[in-house]
Amino acid sequence: MQQKLIFTNLVGKAIDDLVAELGNPQAFVIVDVNTAQYVLPTLSEQSAAVQAASIITIKAGEPNKTLEAVQGIWKSLQDNNATRSGVIINVGGGVVTDLGGFAAATFKRGMRVINVPTTLLGAVDASVGGKTGINFNGYKNEIGTFTEPLASIISTGFFVTLSQQELLSGYAEMLKHALLESSEELAKLLSYSVVYPIFDPEKLLELLKQSVSVKQRIVDQDLTECGARKALNLGHTIGHAFESLGFKRQSPVPHGYAVAWGCVVALVMSHMKLGFPADTMTQFAKYVNKNYGAFAFSCDDYQQLITYMQHDKKNVRPGEICFTLLSAVGEPHINECVSDDDIKAALDIYRDLMGV
Amino acid sequence: MQQKLIFTNLVGKAIDDLVAELGNPQAFVIVDVNTAQYVLPTLSEQSAAVQAASIITIKAGEPNKTLEAVQGIWKSLQDNNATRSGVIINVGGGVVTDLGGFAAATFKRGMRVINVPTTLLGAVDASVGGKTGINFNGYKNEIGTFTEPLASIISTGFFVTLSQQELLSGYAEMLKHALLESSEELAKLLSYSVVYPIFDPEKLLELLKQSVSVKQRIVDQDLTECGARKALNLGHTIGHAFESLGFKRQSPVPHGYAVAWGCVVALVMSHMKLGFPADTMTQFAKYVNKNYGAFAFSCDDYQQLITYMQHDKKNVRPGEICFTLLSAVGEPHINECVSDDDIKAALDIYRDLMGV
Repeated sequence: MQQKLIFTNLVGKAIDDLVAELGNPQAFVIVDVNTAQYVLPTLSEQSAAVQAASIITIKAGEPNKTLEAVQGIWKSLQDNNATRSGVIINVGGGVVTDLGGFAAATFKRGMRVINVPTTLLGAVDASVGGKTGINFNGYKNEIGTFTEPLASIISTGFFVTLSQQELLSGYAEMLKHALLESSEELAKLLSYSVVYPIFDPEKLLELLKQSVSVKQRIVDQDLTECGARKALNLGHTIGHAFESLGFKRQSPVPHGYAVAWGCVVALVMSHMKLGFPADTMTQFAKYVNKNYGAFAFSCDDYQQLITYMQHDKKNVRPGEICFTLLSAVGEPHINECVSDDDIKAALDIYRDLMGV
Repeated sequence: MQQKLIFTNLVGKAIDDLVAELGNPQAFVIVDVNTAQYVLPTLSEQSAAVQAASIITIKAGEPNKTLEAVQGIWKSLQDNNATRSGVIINVGGGVVTDLGGFAAATFKRGMRVINVPTTLLGAVDASVGGKTGINFNGYKNEIGTFTEPLASIISTGFFVTLSQQELLSGYAEMLKHALLESSEELAKLLSYSVVYPIFDPEKLLELLKQSVSVKQRIVDQDLTECGARKALNLGHTIGHAFESLGFKRQSPVPHGYAVAWGCVVALVMSHMKLGFPADTMTQFAKYVNKNYGAFAFSCDDYQQLITYMQHDKKNVRPGEICFTLLSAVGEPHINECVSDDDIKAALDIYRDLMGV
């Protein structure tokens, strides 16, 4: 079943319409401490379903995307006698939709879900496509399911309270979608600024629609990531390794930033292996460097980064590391295996390009 | 995707054929301490895939169907650099297939599964139909997924080491399938004895094929238990409550026995609410009493039993308890809500019929 994508700034009404369609089942709203404070009061005013719902609040942030947090949600659902025909409304960023989605997918073997992303990253990525999950034993998203929500309600109204860092983090996934789509889309994004004071919510909603449609089209071909969906992994194998290293250093990096940097390394490998144009690679690296800075590491970290990459879920065989690369903008090639030596060479070039 | 059902006593060959079809991916065998001792050595001789596989051993028995056990499996998979394209071969009873199935369904968002049930209960029920799960916070199968295995390999060769209690436990699910199917099937089962010395593995394999086909036909209509599949819940809402009470008393009862007793209560309710024939109800109760004995409780336990029933996953609304009942053998009615008073009346009649 394909999930509904609803683009609107009348979020409360959209929720009420969906819940009414389901026959007004028992509803639960999952928020983190931030959306509890900044989003929930407004939503409660706008939506009778939210006002009537039981509220489950979790801690904010990636380090809390844990099995312990999931157990807390399961217990709250038990305490409220939740049945499988209830509905869970996830209101928050990627942590809330990943965690709430996993709790919902597994409680009594599956409750229905409506996602209300409140961050740009959530809107363009986590809330769409059915990936749910938690971090486990030091690895990101190691445990989870493919379970599409009933619907995602995508709006830009909540973004005015986001920091520059959060906006840029989401924008990185949009850049990735543009790399997978066409030079025209990429040019559009490279000429727009998601950052204040130029940030324009209406224009952004338009760009978002376009960007999310790239993802949805790919997910519809391959929900469980056996083939085509791996294209969306562009920049992520390396990005996740950067995130794991940042986590280990106790200096976490935002997911979107890691993806932006990971895309730079992926373009370097694409150039090395598939003849991706050097000028586009350089232009992209400059844009990323200017807006996101650079993730710094030395050659002493290479082996650790490679070890993280070996744990990537998309690898086909143990020990072999596979990437999504591009022969050109809009031309993804999945399952490109790269040797450890070539990975190290690409990390060298990345450090040159980014000046680290 | 519908799971393959393979009925054979050449289990090793069937495993090797399936693993070869998958392109010989990395394989993991999950066993419990019993099947590690009694089944694995033989299987290793018969199957190159099993011999080459990494073995993950879990503790045996329902009390070990926990989140802790799942975490142990996840960690073993991590330690062995398992990728999503690996395959998990569950060798054991319902605990192994439920637990191993859940670990597989959620590790890296899903590995493939082959079930090799080694108990009659596993063969006729747990290994078929895609329910995976664990007990949580005192409730049975509270957490899980609907994820069909690639295949179940069903044989009767392993059953010669089963106790009378285990054979009867599996036979109860076959009785349930017969109640859902036809008076002819029910008569066949009531005239066969699964217990030594009359136990005949070849005859049993034939009865099993028939019985499993009832389940598979119903699951194919409705994997995620939105409608038709609830028919399979016959006897289970009450049965699970009996199991929970047994667990609380630290005197656990076998699942199949609980189902057999639960079917008796369901037939009593069916008679009260839907005119199910009293003579068939009495005949069935006598058969169950003779072969399974009776679960004993007093009216002081009624409220606790009702509380357990309120947590049943198949309930439609909080507080309301729904049952699958029969207007006649082969005529299931799902979502029959029964008031607390009527439940208590049915429990009274059960105690009369069973002499407790």
